[in-house]
Amino acid sequence: MLSDTEVRAMDARVDDTAIGQTRPMTPAPPDRRFASDNNAAVHPRVMEAVERANVGHATAYGDDPWTSSAVDAFRDLFGSEVSVYMVWGGTGANVMALSTLLTPGGAIVCTRSSHINVDETGAPERILGAKLIDVADDRGRMSPDQIREWAHWIGVQHHPQPAVLSITQSTEWGTLYSPDEVAALCDVAHSLGMRVHLDGARIANATAALGGTAAALRAFTIDAGVDVVSFGGAKNGMMHGEAVVYLSPDLDRWAPYVRKQVTQLPSKVRYISAQFSALLNDDLWIRNAQHANSMADLLHRRVADLPGVDAGPAPVVNSIFPSLSRGADQLREWSFFYDWDPTHVRWMTSWDTSTGDIDAFVAGVRHFVS
Amino acid sequence: MLSDTEVRAMDARVDDTAIGQTRPMTPAPPDRRFASDNNAAVHPRVMEAVERANVGHATAYGDDPWTSSAVDAFRDLFGSEVSVYMVWGGTGANVMALSTLLTPGGAIVCTRSSHINVDETGAPERILGAKLIDVADDRGRMSPDQIREWAHWIGVQHHPQPAVLSITQSTEWGTLYSPDEVAALCDVAHSLGMRVHLDGARIANATAALGGTAAALRAFTIDAGVDVVSFGGAKNGMMHGEAVVYLSPDLDRWAPYVRKQVTQLPSKVRYISAQFSALLNDDLWIRNAQHANSMADLLHRRVADLPGVDAGPAPVVNSIFPSLSRGADQLREWSFFYDWDPTHVRWMTSWDTSTGDIDAFVAGVRHFVS
Amino acid sequence: MLSDTEVRAMDARVDDTAIGQTRPMTPAPPDRRFASDNNAAVHPRVMEAVERANVGHATAYGDDPWTSSAVDAFRDLFGSEVSVYMVWGGTGANVMALSTLLTPGGAIVCTRSSHINVDETGAPERILGAKLIDVADDRGRMSPDQIREWAHWIGVQHHPQPAVLSITQSTEWGTLYSPDEVAALCDVAHSLGMRVHLDGARIANATAALGGTAAALRAFTIDAGVDVVSFGGAKNGMMHGEAVVYLSPDLDRWAPYVRKQVTQLPSKVRYISAQFSALLNDDLWIRNAQHANSMADLLHRRVADLPGVDAGPAPVVNSIFPSLSRGADQLREWSFFYDWDPTHVRWMTSWDTSTGDIDAFVAGVRHFVS
Amino acid sequence: MLSDTEVRAMDARVDDTAIGQTRPMTPAPPDRRFASDNNAAVHPRVMEAVERANVGHATAYGDDPWTSSAVDAFRDLFGSEVSVYMVWGGTGANVMALSTLLTPGGAIVCTRSSHINVDETGAPERILGAKLIDVADDRGRMSPDQIREWAHWIGVQHHPQPAVLSITQSTEWGTLYSPDEVAALCDVAHSLGMRVHLDGARIANATAALGGTAAALRAFTIDAGVDVVSFGGAKNGMMHGEAVVYLSPDLDRWAPYVRKQVTQLPSKVRYISAQFSALLNDDLWIRNAQHANSMADLLHRRVADLPGVDAGPAPVVNSIFPSLSRGADQLREWSFFYDWDPTHVRWMTSWDTSTGDIDAFVAGVRHFVS
Repeated sequence: MLSDTEVRAMDARVDDTAIGQTRPMTPAPPDRRFASDNNAAVHPRVMEAVERANVGHATAYGDDPWTSSAVDAFRDLFGSEVSVYMVWGGTGANVMALSTLLTPGGAIVCTRSSHINVDETGAPERILGAKLIDVADDRGRMSPDQIREWAHWIGVQHHPQPAVLSITQSTEWGTLYSPDEVAALCDVAHSLGMRVHLDGARIANATAALGGTAAALRAFTIDAGVDVVSFGGAKNGMMHGEAVVYLSPDLDRWAPYVRKQVTQLPSKVRYISAQFSALLNDDLWIRNAQHANSMADLLHRRVADLPGVDAGPAPVVNSIFPSLSRGADQLREWSFFYDWDPTHVRWMTSWDTSTGDIDAFVAGVRHFVS
Repeated sequence: MLSDTEVRAMDARVDDTAIGQTRPMTPAPPDRRFASDNNAAVHPRVMEAVERANVGHATAYGDDPWTSSAVDAFRDLFGSEVSVYMVWGGTGANVMALSTLLTPGGAIVCTRSSHINVDETGAPERILGAKLIDVADDRGRMSPDQIREWAHWIGVQHHPQPAVLSITQSTEWGTLYSPDEVAALCDVAHSLGMRVHLDGARIANATAALGGTAAALRAFTIDAGVDVVSFGGAKNGMMHGEAVVYLSPDLDRWAPYVRKQVTQLPSKVRYISAQFSALLNDDLWIRNAQHANSMADLLHRRVADLPGVDAGPAPVVNSIFPSLSRGADQLREWSFFYDWDPTHVRWMTSWDTSTGDIDAFVAGVRHFVS
Repeated sequence: MLSDTEVRAMDARVDDTAIGQTRPMTPAPPDRRFASDNNAAVHPRVMEAVERANVGHATAYGDDPWTSSAVDAFRDLFGSEVSVYMVWGGTGANVMALSTLLTPGGAIVCTRSSHINVDETGAPERILGAKLIDVADDRGRMSPDQIREWAHWIGVQHHPQPAVLSITQSTEWGTLYSPDEVAALCDVAHSLGMRVHLDGARIANATAALGGTAAALRAFTIDAGVDVVSFGGAKNGMMHGEAVVYLSPDLDRWAPYVRKQVTQLPSKVRYISAQFSALLNDDLWIRNAQHANSMADLLHRRVADLPGVDAGPAPVVNSIFPSLSRGADQLREWSFFYDWDPTHVRWMTSWDTSTGDIDAFVAGVRHFVS
Repeated sequence: MLSDTEVRAMDARVDDTAIGQTRPMTPAPPDRRFASDNNAAVHPRVMEAVERANVGHATAYGDDPWTSSAVDAFRDLFGSEVSVYMVWGGTGANVMALSTLLTPGGAIVCTRSSHINVDETGAPERILGAKLIDVADDRGRMSPDQIREWAHWIGVQHHPQPAVLSITQSTEWGTLYSPDEVAALCDVAHSLGMRVHLDGARIANATAALGGTAAALRAFTIDAGVDVVSFGGAKNGMMHGEAVVYLSPDLDRWAPYVRKQVTQLPSKVRYISAQFSALLNDDLWIRNAQHANSMADLLHRRVADLPGVDAGPAPVVNSIFPSLSRGADQLREWSFFYDWDPTHVRWMTSWDTSTGDIDAFVAGVRHFVS
């Protein structure tokens, strides 16, 4: 991570560049935008792995050596004989995982801002036929008490039974639960007979932020009591593919059938598995995420003091949620990003964000907002 | 397609090779198996397109130039302003398409051997919540009368209402409907107020067999009255991706939401779209399929007269369904393929099957079966 | 049951009545039709029970003394601590029972002519999201081999997993399984890891036919290995209400929630429970069914030799399925009944069918058909 | 409605009764509790109608003269050729109605405290496969702005599309929308392309409170723009049965099939229809509700000034939601009622509540709470 001095030097450089320029001259937009880590390309080492896998025939649907290797890599990572199911995408991973955890008549407790609640077009409700009990979140996070609150529904036939807790790490607001906080959530959930799902679309960014090691990952997943993880790939340098990883034994009994039934069994699985192997090899997944996280930190520091920008809390992962007092429309038009809610925008970095991209984007913020 | 003389020459060559060999010596299995076109690798030109798309950022979920180009290519192909939705896989394409065609309380008429009925782990029933009225098929094909038979359910509140006809072209049995036959099925379906879906997982093989031109494709789809097509990619040289193509205007009103809701909205769509553009360019999709079809024809002719093999009807697309009187287990062990039903095996060719693969496989058939 | 002599005397009486009449004079239709046992009124003793229950307040949703008494009556009947859930109707009973038996990714094996397959407007597919594997039936009955046939789907991820066997007793074709036959079906199902549901919409008619005692009921249900029964009320003299009876312990863990979730939790349960208590008291349920069965037998014997009528097999319960060579439309117009299939009609008796009704109906058959 | 003087006279009478009694002596609980209008018995005139319908055979599933008459009565009531579908219960009525209004990928906007959201065990999510967008309510009521808030989801493929507005009248909190307020909600919903469902489980109490005439009913339903009503029967003196009433033409195209598919087609419909005819005849439905409403008002006035009781707002329909500072458990033990939320209990009156019941209950409140 850069020192404050280095960051100031960057600002100075941009300012120098600007000397003699008339303000209205629009700067060039960054090569890579800050809209979403989903917009990034595929990491070269991941792409190489895809190319290397492109030889001859391989049994479809998972019975191939690339998939065996990737599963082994996941088992090494978690230090346990976890069960791993490759799937197409993140919504599919979540739906599949939740489907195998639900009891008949069961409901899912999640935060109001969770991806499953607001960004999956109701896929969980449609495919699971289950209610999402959405609790108010504090910038993406929930507390054990918010699970306990629903305990009074247990045993009452007029209410669906809280059956699964689904949390996101890192959250949709770019925040984190500490390992202890995850453990506390799992403890309450398990004490109520519930299972725990972790939506890890950005699990790499969380791991990078919490230590950047396999031990860091395990601390907030398998060691904390999480039962199943949606392990993200596409937001961290892959072309396609996520993995549903069962950390608790025996929960995946019906998983193979459920995966196909929810349309998430890939045919040519080798191309997903090869990507995961490349990503997990030599900690590439963590390094990609560390880079993205550090770029968000840099962006935050670069805009924190700009007029017209309330940069919000310093990021712990790869997104910041500023409030802009003016110029948001022009800035968005110039280099696209998403509005997060009526008062916040979201700027997100990815494995391929460069400091040059940040220079360019900050120049745009200065031009349109400040 | 090879002449009979050329085929006989191949047989002779293999026999020559075998001279002096003692029969029990097991031949080497083929480089590429005859298990499924899903086992094939990605075509080099398709892979190149993926690599070329791997530059910079692109808006996720379809608003990117690669997708625009692919949609244009589909519109050129069908000669109409069709609506095109990229999806992850074939089961997903079918479920999405059917979901947008169904009426409340509606049912789907299909053949008993159709993929949606027996090979999708009940995904249609689960996600659509609809009954599949499965009619007996004649090697994968159904007749207009088999739709009419269900007309007596219409208007009776105790029965789900026949709402969609789903046919497969080419069928799961490697057979074809002529354009007139498709038109006759569509006519009956439409006269009963039903919509028509065509599962085109192997639509390229059908197109190749029925003329190998865009006109041939149009004749059995848009011209015949089909409303929506699941347009296959993965079985014809792509890594992943299928397209749901709405041929009838206005049927896709809710398609974007349904796509995401059934977990079939890809994030980095550009990598699918680039593949489709490569495939549709310069008729590569047809040439791939023509090759696969001709290899199946060659395989059929090579085994048609072998003892212990009842090769069944000559293929029109890329699969044959022989009956083996002995040696099936050893042959399958040596080079894997699927049993189709208790009396038939399925041998399937793909875009990358070589005559050498056929030489090797036929040698195995001679060794283990004949 | 009447002797042949008595039946002939009836015929004679009708013939006598007809002496001197000119044939074209249309006879008066019967007071009660032969369309369905669902068309019958409520038995007076059942109605009295409803009236007696109409006093003061009672806790809704089942926590009332009438329901406790009815549950006790069911436990006495089955000689076991069965769990009993009152529901609104037959389709609901089936859907609720099946929902609690299904595993994720599971399918239901049933006969092609079963009520769940053809007469519930796809409610099972919609609410359960599960495939019905419908096997060809022999007049409503299936054999153990037809379950075994699907064993090859077990463990294959492309197929839904056979999870529940659903049989009907008496069947939709008015046929019966012997207790040994039910036990053989249950044995195969259980050996494949499946659960067994019995649709007992007409379980009273079956019980009456198989001995007319609680022991007879137990022999083909709890003793044979059936896990859950839909115990019919409305076709046997009740106004509304069926009971889902769990014969195997622990299968009803989620039943209360599933019942409400599938819209089958009645509010004022006391009025259903009171009816069941009246029905089960003093074997009224069996006597009602015995009467209906005997009336079907009488009807069959009265029409068996009539010209233009192929009466089909003698009934064992309360329906016959004749083929009429002429006059079906006029007869149906005169006194409504249902066509069963293109070649059979269904004539069904009920607890309130009188010999006078049969006299009248037979006169109509003679008039319009013979 | 009683004058304040008359109410005070009642209090005096109770106090007189109490003279000379030692306080600890527990009073006798009321004959009828204040737990729910679902606990009430069937009104005698409704029961008579059931008995009168119990003659001979009637075609099942709705094609009977009792149902025709009831439909006519509903048409008279609404002054329009409305379509009427009898169903078993309230949850079923809601699910059926919503199912016919939803578009593919659609969602339902409702209040957080609505019955469909919290008291139907997730039946809507399970059977409709749709998200309930639950907005915060002000004692059961929502505002047009809370619908508009979700307009930004329209056209975005990551969000389910707001398709149906479901409001309750009278609300679960015993509050009312004025006809103008309903019209304003309908206007916003329709302007966004949404349909409007009104859960009228207590529509009679609302009608009674808003004028007690057919015109009053029409003003907040058909005239205000409501498309479909769940018209309650069981909470207002019926044994079982609700009606789904389509006020807007053409919306019921698939209703017959959906009704059966969601397990809500009653077999012996005549017994429900006869009850509705009795209820609608001679304004019995309004008079029952007026009585219940006036009893709630009386109860409120009787407890409003008691120590330990914060009676909350005066009721407009048949429930009050007091807060008790002590003694709630003993009072509930003595005469059961439900806790509404952590700080409120719910006391509900019904068509059969007597002033004697209120005398007795108030005595209990004085004994245990005050």
